[in-house]
Amino acid sequence: MHASEVFALLRDGHPRTRAELAASTGVARSTVAARIDQLMRLGLVAPSGGTSTGGRPPSLFAMNPEARLVTGVDVGATHVALVLADLSGRVHAESATALDVAEGPEAVLSWVTTTVTRCLGELGRQRGDLAAVGMGLPGPVEHATGRPINPPIMPGWDRYDVPRRVQKDLDVPVLVDNDVNIMALGEQSAFPATRDLVFVKVATGIGAGIISGGKLQRGAQGTAGDVGHVRVARAGDVTCRCGNTGCLEAVASGPALARTLREAGLPAETGEDVVDLTRAGDLTALRVVRQAGRDLGEVLATLVNLINPAVVVIGGRLAGAGEHLLAGIREVVYQRSLPLATEHLRLRASSVGDQAAVKGAVALAIGHALSPEQIELDVQRLDASS
Amino acid sequence: MHASEVFALLRDGHPRTRAELAASTGVARSTVAARIDQLMRLGLVAPSGGTSTGGRPPSLFAMNPEARLVTGVDVGATHVALVLADLSGRVHAESATALDVAEGPEAVLSWVTTTVTRCLGELGRQRGDLAAVGMGLPGPVEHATGRPINPPIMPGWDRYDVPRRVQKDLDVPVLVDNDVNIMALGEQSAFPATRDLVFVKVATGIGAGIISGGKLQRGAQGTAGDVGHVRVARAGDVTCRCGNTGCLEAVASGPALARTLREAGLPAETGEDVVDLTRAGDLTALRVVRQAGRDLGEVLATLVNLINPAVVVIGGRLAGAGEHLLAGIREVVYQRSLPLATEHLRLRASSVGDQAAVKGAVALAIGHALSPEQIELDVQRLDASS
Repeated sequence: MHASEVFALLRDGHPRTRAELAASTGVARSTVAARIDQLMRLGLVAPSGGTSTGGRPPSLFAMNPEARLVTGVDVGATHVALVLADLSGRVHAESATALDVAEGPEAVLSWVTTTVTRCLGELGRQRGDLAAVGMGLPGPVEHATGRPINPPIMPGWDRYDVPRRVQKDLDVPVLVDNDVNIMALGEQSAFPATRDLVFVKVATGIGAGIISGGKLQRGAQGTAGDVGHVRVARAGDVTCRCGNTGCLEAVASGPALARTLREAGLPAETGEDVVDLTRAGDLTALRVVRQAGRDLGEVLATLVNLINPAVVVIGGRLAGAGEHLLAGIREVVYQRSLPLATEHLRLRASSVGDQAAVKGAVALAIGHALSPEQIELDVQRLDASS
Repeated sequence: MHASEVFALLRDGHPRTRAELAASTGVARSTVAARIDQLMRLGLVAPSGGTSTGGRPPSLFAMNPEARLVTGVDVGATHVALVLADLSGRVHAESATALDVAEGPEAVLSWVTTTVTRCLGELGRQRGDLAAVGMGLPGPVEHATGRPINPPIMPGWDRYDVPRRVQKDLDVPVLVDNDVNIMALGEQSAFPATRDLVFVKVATGIGAGIISGGKLQRGAQGTAGDVGHVRVARAGDVTCRCGNTGCLEAVASGPALARTLREAGLPAETGEDVVDLTRAGDLTALRVVRQAGRDLGEVLATLVNLINPAVVVIGGRLAGAGEHLLAGIREVVYQRSLPLATEHLRLRASSVGDQAAVKGAVALAIGHALSPEQIELDVQRLDASS
């Protein structure tokens, strides 16, 4: 019987007695008591249900979410945002700044560590109270090392050791992933019972984060979820920025839609302009966005057949076009995918929006800090130091 | 420290001393000795390195693969095959019969349980030596219950409680899945280090079994891997047996290729005939099979972009056309998929062939029998009975 197993039972926040925990685990009450003692010394578990009046020992125990804090960081193309949250995900502090990722890792990461240190101070917490940092970057990341690999819009970041730079100032585990994977984790917070969720970001590029069987799936080389360069019928021989022809991105990304509208004589430079024209009710923009939804639907119909998610969430700047984009997607997905796979499928616009990345980064950090492996490591350190 | 954790270290078959196990796990040697004692009483671990001469206690321990047997069953459209294997997967007995699955569950499953009982007897083993049964069925299976759901070629099997019928005669856990998922597990045995493998069966239907992050991924409703009804460009408005148009199966399955060859005046009734014509070097058949490979490649290119497998294995009857089919697949996959995803991709014809299903069923049964949960359950039963 490990301390982490007792903790797993208490993680829902519901207080329990030693006897209840002993009954659930089938081990002796004295063993449970010893594990609770370790978890209390780590601060992860605390007595619950009010102070006892007659000096009796506490009888109810629950997870103590405020024992430690984690940081979730969202590094975007032109902004950095971070939050400090407790182990239940509740945000205690947040900060954001306009900062171009092209200014390089030192500029971005020193802002991060300085801001985290300042926030800890303002909250009256110590550096030792920080358990982990989760971070999303706007480019491909080698998951095992946390290094960006040939990131197109991040000059100076290629193979930079992001965890080491952060750990120089904040001595905690640092988990780094690309923004789309991080946002998938953030969107999952709105569907806590769902183990199979796909998040699709439709913006300058188009990418997906895939959670299957409760786990983020990165694939053999970490490139899973590349929906943007799947061929779609309508793209024909349109050249994509990747050099290939016929890619989804070449006809359904923000820049592609803006180009189509400019060719129709409308003032659209960016995906944001496309969304604005849609919101203003421009009929050409509505038609173009709905067709982009159908193109997306063509790829997502295949994704639904291959992966069978319970939830597909559409986010990114173009999701601002709302139902016009979703209607096109639904039209094709419900026509093309297997009925058994679409019968219970929920296909939604993001409800988490801008907060998806920091929420996901927090989830990644909490997942690490409260993993059985990390708790056992913390228990061993505690035993070694006492 | 659980018995299952000590067992996990011994599962590779390499003998270790108590001191080595204590050092690997960081727990006291006396605790390791107690866990080894439990595992020896279960028969899962045995002394290794020869008998001691001077009556000294044994010092080396290893997994004892022959302690228990499992059964792997492959139920096909017109045959049933099974093997009895030990916990290392080594086959000790096998049997097969021609039996139409349409004869119904009682006919098929009574053959299975009777044959397992007979084989156990011939091996001089008891019924209690059997640890689990794994089984693949040629239709959709609800994973949680082991019941076939609306299986098109299995009259009389709809929602039939397969595990209960088997357990009536053989009182062990029974794991049931569809044949394509089972075959994916069987193919994985040829790539033991691979955690991301996709198996594609090309026969009367076309389906895929997807292993991501080391686990078979079934999706939210268990329909993951449905590659057969993805739309491909060349299928245009060809009607598929599913009622939709443009599906991969409508142009690249065995019946579709046979029809194409018949229309060209060739004597082809089945996928087998197509393979025979290809092997005989018929130029029309070669051209048609290569084009089917390109159609498959179109869907697999998308699959590679979405899932990023390390290995894609092509099996099923049409894989008998060998390099002609694979050449068409490779042509499109390497042109259409992300370079990073194809750089290390291995795209192969099945090397396991007909044995994939029984091998996979054995792997499923062993995975269950040696899971930490099952071992802890066995230990608890042992403690309760002693």
